[in-house]
Amino acid sequence: MTDARLKHYGWGREGEGMSTEERDFVLSRYKQKFGRAAFDTIVVPGLEDLALPTPRVTVPASLSRFCTSERYDRAAHAYGKSYPDYVRAMHGDYLCAPDFVAYPRDEKEISAVMDFAGSAGATLTPFGGGSSVCGGVEPRVDGIRYKAAVTLDLRNLNKVVEVDATSRAALIEAGTYGPSLEAQLKVHGFSLRHFPQSFEYSTLGGWIATRSGGHFASLYTHIDDFVESLRVIAPRGVVETRRLPGSGAGPSPDRLFIGSEGILGVISCAWMRLQPRPKFRAGASVRFASFFKAARAVRAIAQAGLYPSNCRILDPAEAYNTAAGDGSVAIMVLAFESGDHPLGVWMGRALECCADHGGSREQAQEQGQEQEQDAHLAGAAGIWRNAFIRMPYAREFLNPAGIINDTFETAITWDRFEDFHDKVKAATERAILQATGVRGEVTCRFTHIYPDGPAPYFSFHALGRHGALIKQWQAIKDAASDALIEAGGTITHHHAVGRDHRPWYDRQRPELFATALRAAKRELDPTGMLNPGVLIDL
Amino acid sequence: MTDARLKHYGWGREGEGMSTEERDFVLSRYKQKFGRAAFDTIVVPGLEDLALPTPRVTVPASLSRFCTSERYDRAAHAYGKSYPDYVRAMHGDYLCAPDFVAYPRDEKEISAVMDFAGSAGATLTPFGGGSSVCGGVEPRVDGIRYKAAVTLDLRNLNKVVEVDATSRAALIEAGTYGPSLEAQLKVHGFSLRHFPQSFEYSTLGGWIATRSGGHFASLYTHIDDFVESLRVIAPRGVVETRRLPGSGAGPSPDRLFIGSEGILGVISCAWMRLQPRPKFRAGASVRFASFFKAARAVRAIAQAGLYPSNCRILDPAEAYNTAAGDGSVAIMVLAFESGDHPLGVWMGRALECCADHGGSREQAQEQGQEQEQDAHLAGAAGIWRNAFIRMPYAREFLNPAGIINDTFETAITWDRFEDFHDKVKAATERAILQATGVRGEVTCRFTHIYPDGPAPYFSFHALGRHGALIKQWQAIKDAASDALIEAGGTITHHHAVGRDHRPWYDRQRPELFATALRAAKRELDPTGMLNPGVLIDL
Repeated sequence: MTDARLKHYGWGREGEGMSTEERDFVLSRYKQKFGRAAFDTIVVPGLEDLALPTPRVTVPASLSRFCTSERYDRAAHAYGKSYPDYVRAMHGDYLCAPDFVAYPRDEKEISAVMDFAGSAGATLTPFGGGSSVCGGVEPRVDGIRYKAAVTLDLRNLNKVVEVDATSRAALIEAGTYGPSLEAQLKVHGFSLRHFPQSFEYSTLGGWIATRSGGHFASLYTHIDDFVESLRVIAPRGVVETRRLPGSGAGPSPDRLFIGSEGILGVISCAWMRLQPRPKFRAGASVRFASFFKAARAVRAIAQAGLYPSNCRILDPAEAYNTAAGDGSVAIMVLAFESGDHPLGVWMGRALECCADHGGSREQAQEQGQEQEQDAHLAGAAGIWRNAFIRMPYAREFLNPAGIINDTFETAITWDRFEDFHDKVKAATERAILQATGVRGEVTCRFTHIYPDGPAPYFSFHALGRHGALIKQWQAIKDAASDALIEAGGTITHHHAVGRDHRPWYDRQRPELFATALRAAKRELDPTGMLNPGVLIDL
Repeated sequence: MTDARLKHYGWGREGEGMSTEERDFVLSRYKQKFGRAAFDTIVVPGLEDLALPTPRVTVPASLSRFCTSERYDRAAHAYGKSYPDYVRAMHGDYLCAPDFVAYPRDEKEISAVMDFAGSAGATLTPFGGGSSVCGGVEPRVDGIRYKAAVTLDLRNLNKVVEVDATSRAALIEAGTYGPSLEAQLKVHGFSLRHFPQSFEYSTLGGWIATRSGGHFASLYTHIDDFVESLRVIAPRGVVETRRLPGSGAGPSPDRLFIGSEGILGVISCAWMRLQPRPKFRAGASVRFASFFKAARAVRAIAQAGLYPSNCRILDPAEAYNTAAGDGSVAIMVLAFESGDHPLGVWMGRALECCADHGGSREQAQEQGQEQEQDAHLAGAAGIWRNAFIRMPYAREFLNPAGIINDTFETAITWDRFEDFHDKVKAATERAILQATGVRGEVTCRFTHIYPDGPAPYFSFHALGRHGALIKQWQAIKDAASDALIEAGGTITHHHAVGRDHRPWYDRQRPELFATALRAAKRELDPTGMLNPGVLIDL
């Protein structure tokens, strides 16, 4: 790869980060929030200062052409991007680093690593872009059953192998990063149009393994819907499903592997359904007096059968934090797109739904058609979109400043939404105050919408204390997760389960489904090498 | 139930059937097709003339309030509605009749029957409306592992328990038949809008267990999409999934049970996503010079993001057989519906797609808005719709006349469709001639469409010979199924697998997926009582 390498700590590639202006803006919001002029900030150790444990196994000669135990590779594969990941990394705790990292170039090399892991009693951690925020890519050993840890980084499986323009589908290797995937498809006039926040630093295989949520706010919300067929390399053998537009032949084999988070096998490639590049766009920002009024408009739009590509709402505080609003109003970012037809009628009806609930469109409504098509890049919508993409860069300096900022997301049916929102928000606010002694902030937006309910996404901000950050974060996380599970939500709408969400996932999923999943895993991964502790225990 | 009871042989309830005019029309088409003035017709034995085997077990006292071994009940649960089912039934072969039929009134009674079956070494066959066309409801015993056969008919679980109008969802018991389900929802202003051909004589639980295909030709093609959560009673215990509009927490638990065809447990109820009753409709019939030209228009519409509720095409022979066309043109039945907004723009764009491929709208295009809204009930569209609903009644007199008529359905990506169609059609025609010595007919339509491919539905017509009917049918079925599996299709898009499709399903599904499914079944149904031989062998 010609790009700069990924940071071992922080977001994105080496040399990237927020500009001074962006950083100042973000910090100023936190200073204001917590009434502080400055923060007690620690220095994050550099790569060369890290004390990595001695590898428990060495790379065997047969794998040496694509495996390495170099310092950088081990450090860069020790963690995902969860809050406790950041804290441990900024304190130089790299005890969980893998013994070596494999970069297989084909399926045979994946199988060869599995054979080695089986014989060495090593665990195997599939790794896409490493953007997991739920403890999904941290290597595990226990010294008893699992004596060593190997990470399998799929980045060398990075090609669009074949494009079927007639059916609008492509065979894509699982290690392909978002930008490369889009660049390769663009040549053919297509797009996957799956743009999670992690888009630049995550891979197709990771998206499928974690049921990633993407660009479309409605209809095609998860990557699930775009999967036409899969190839999965399991320790026991290869699973390949048939390319079909639809089928009713037994339980869907694809759906067993979509969301399996690497515990059943390693996705090597997939036939994916593509979208045309949009020729028509209509976008608008709409203001509402309150988040719940905006939510009722969202419900009307979701139940109208209009299928907007964007229909996200920000509560007043969330809009303020990203400079998309002044803190007095909730904002809806509304957009339609099509490769086929103009969208005036669609947008017109959606704006009527907004007006029914007191929504007023931002000035753009006075503008002509041309401006309207770029409205998703302008005004509150554009400001929020930029903040959304840049946000992950803030953590690498916020965490050393002792600021605990994290997000959690869920879904709930409309009948329970308002009560659910209030309970979860209050429980999280209470936990922040109890854990840190300082009043924090909890904000909410919708990321995806359905006719039967929204996917609310909460952000929280707390002023932590160095030395207690993980404990403080855990207390807040526990309270928030307890509240949302008790009130009927899902522990994750698109961030996945990993290990961090296990206590609540275990309450959510039917016990006999876990029993069935364990039985399936025993067949596909008899030694249990793949991601132990993720989703299930054996 | 106050309705007449279901026929033990034939379609629907006792007293129902085709009128003399309908029967004459259908027979005249076959006389013309095969150049015959009359058919060699046998008499189907009445219920009282059947020799049912002596029950191998008797109803235990503890179950006697809801179980029976009456002649009618055993005979009416011996078969589904597949072609070989009809032939065996019309010859009075009822060897496979269950020893008794249970009509549980709640989940406790389902569990009680499972307990009995476990202790008696009996198989348990879940039974909804009995409309299976693939050997999915025939009781099985082998005298070794399985010593007796009990059928579990869910018809007493027939209520809409709760309606959540805000989220547009309802909790519905699994044994609810289509018409009752719609009648109970209508009171609340809602509809499930799932209208398979078997609608009147099939149940919600059956639809979910077999991944039934319904009303919507695009977008919400399978019942799968309407399932918000499920309750399943397995021999090992109860599985209940959480009501969620969307989730990314591990592989979907619902998707393991959707399409499981009763081998993992018995669906007792489900929260289902509802539709508003349509306020706006736009419909049209469009003629094309050929089936492939019509198919290309369908592809354009499917890829345009318009989501018609109907977009079915009939090849010229299929149109002729149902009197929807004169045999010279292919017909598209096109419709949009909405509870929210007028559909002129949607229909207008879809008709442009048709015109691009030479499609010309039937006269209705000159009519006003009011007529247009009823266009799905008029002209070729209406004629075909009526034939579609009435067709199943024809079999009960066609089969005794020695006519082999059956259907099979599949799905394939667009890039392979035309070649696929020709190969499957030719293989089936060849097999008919070889098996019967008489040229038959194979016609095709689309039932459902996707951006990446259609779901073609084939009908075939052959003149069989009494005494050889099943063998002749099997030779045709084998050739057709071989051809469609070899050419890349699925053995079923929405008819399910049952036992009849096993040889091809076994070639289609990944071997390791079957291994995983067997492992899951061993956990949920340790004695293997549920539907042995359906989907998998143990």
